[in-house]
Amino acid sequence: MARNILTVPVQRFGSAARAEQQDLLAVEEPLQIRIGERNLSITMRTPGHDAELTAGFLFTEGIVTRREDIEKIACARNVAVVTLAAGVELDPEKLQRNFYMTSSCGVCGKASIEALESAGCTMLPRDVPQVEESLIRSLPDKLRGSQEVFDRTGGLHAAGLFSARGELMILREDVGRHNAVDKLVGRAFLDQRLPLRDHVLMLSGRASFELTQKGVMAGIPVMAAVGAPSSLAVKTALRFGMTLIGFLREDRFNVYSGPSRIGG
Amino acid sequence: MARNILTVPVQRFGSAARAEQQDLLAVEEPLQIRIGERNLSITMRTPGHDAELTAGFLFTEGIVTRREDIEKIACARNVAVVTLAAGVELDPEKLQRNFYMTSSCGVCGKASIEALESAGCTMLPRDVPQVEESLIRSLPDKLRGSQEVFDRTGGLHAAGLFSARGELMILREDVGRHNAVDKLVGRAFLDQRLPLRDHVLMLSGRASFELTQKGVMAGIPVMAAVGAPSSLAVKTALRFGMTLIGFLREDRFNVYSGPSRIGG
Repeated sequence: MARNILTVPVQRFGSAARAEQQDLLAVEEPLQIRIGERNLSITMRTPGHDAELTAGFLFTEGIVTRREDIEKIACARNVAVVTLAAGVELDPEKLQRNFYMTSSCGVCGKASIEALESAGCTMLPRDVPQVEESLIRSLPDKLRGSQEVFDRTGGLHAAGLFSARGELMILREDVGRHNAVDKLVGRAFLDQRLPLRDHVLMLSGRASFELTQKGVMAGIPVMAAVGAPSSLAVKTALRFGMTLIGFLREDRFNVYSGPSRIGG
Repeated sequence: MARNILTVPVQRFGSAARAEQQDLLAVEEPLQIRIGERNLSITMRTPGHDAELTAGFLFTEGIVTRREDIEKIACARNVAVVTLAAGVELDPEKLQRNFYMTSSCGVCGKASIEALESAGCTMLPRDVPQVEESLIRSLPDKLRGSQEVFDRTGGLHAAGLFSARGELMILREDVGRHNAVDKLVGRAFLDQRLPLRDHVLMLSGRASFELTQKGVMAGIPVMAAVGAPSSLAVKTALRFGMTLIGFLREDRFNVYSGPSRIGG
């Protein structure tokens, strides 16, 4: 049995009598991320791809910027220990603060977006890539068709990275949707493929600020979600020129920003 | 217009030609929670019920235990400042650590559950309340029927507190499902109605460890979710004798622990 699925007994109540059966659950366990001895974060995640999750978290939080900043990530017993390359210094300010706040204007959505600017994010290149409308409508089926664990448990969020021609490049699943995106971005980071200028990020759920922020950090120009976007996700996409698609179905979708990348 | 909804322009792509329309989005903004001058947490939330969210967060994280511990919660401009009652001391250990880790056995799901024991959680009283099977099946409709903002935006998670006779007592919505539960528990905490020994907590999404943990802290004996539970949510429910229901629909549901509270 895979490490990301657990079998448990369950009583099913339905039109027939109660029935004792076996059910498959998505596994959720904590992962502690350390830099050397320093505890950075604990996240509840689905085991698997822990080094990718760690790399993606460090990158999308702005703690490292280049593949060479990381010498080693050692994962064991729900702990990931990162060794930074010689000469790479941690900015204690970055560990204390996070993207949700800056000291400049108190706490607001605008400050959250300005923090992304401070991290070096600029406008995404205009009008590239061009993505066909029919291709966009095909993405939910492609994502779902490749979601092995979800099909068996119903319990996982998925993030899929597609080329502008609709090929699935990376798929990651997790009980936490931010973890699924961190695993995906972490894979691309470790392969030195960032920024992902020619790609579409597809999400199985809703689009929050946090997910949009991670997409902007990875330089992804098009993000599509099966669910609704939040107000701050839309503001972030508008600020950085990202194409943000919501309520994506086989026959329709809404575009909240950057419609000029969509060809018909 | 309510503070929790924002109107934005959207391009709709469908069978007909592209159409420019207005869409309603759930608002997402940061809330900083402070105790005096000390910054405790920043969470992305839907504005509204901020004092409840703050109280619920402090209680479910084990930072305060009684209504009298809090003298005042002042909310303004996305910042909630808590004044503790005279004589109430903050345990710096509790602020550093959280429920996901203890120092005893490294990092694992078992440690997360043991942290709940350390916070004083014990087995819930056996077999009470008794809840009718038909009543459980009626909950999703009741929750959805009362979800004002979701109906307009599709973008919010909901948590509903029901009596064992199926009356909706408290409903809260938020872009973050943990916030919806914190707001609900916070309302009950401020009204000095904890523990909620005779109630059912209904969730619009999946059941993670974090949500189960908050339910256990509030003493809620029955938790029902429209989506799937995670492995650690089920382990937590089993440990504290909570009835945990998943995949709840009008015609069926699964029971992962504590079936003896369900009458037919």
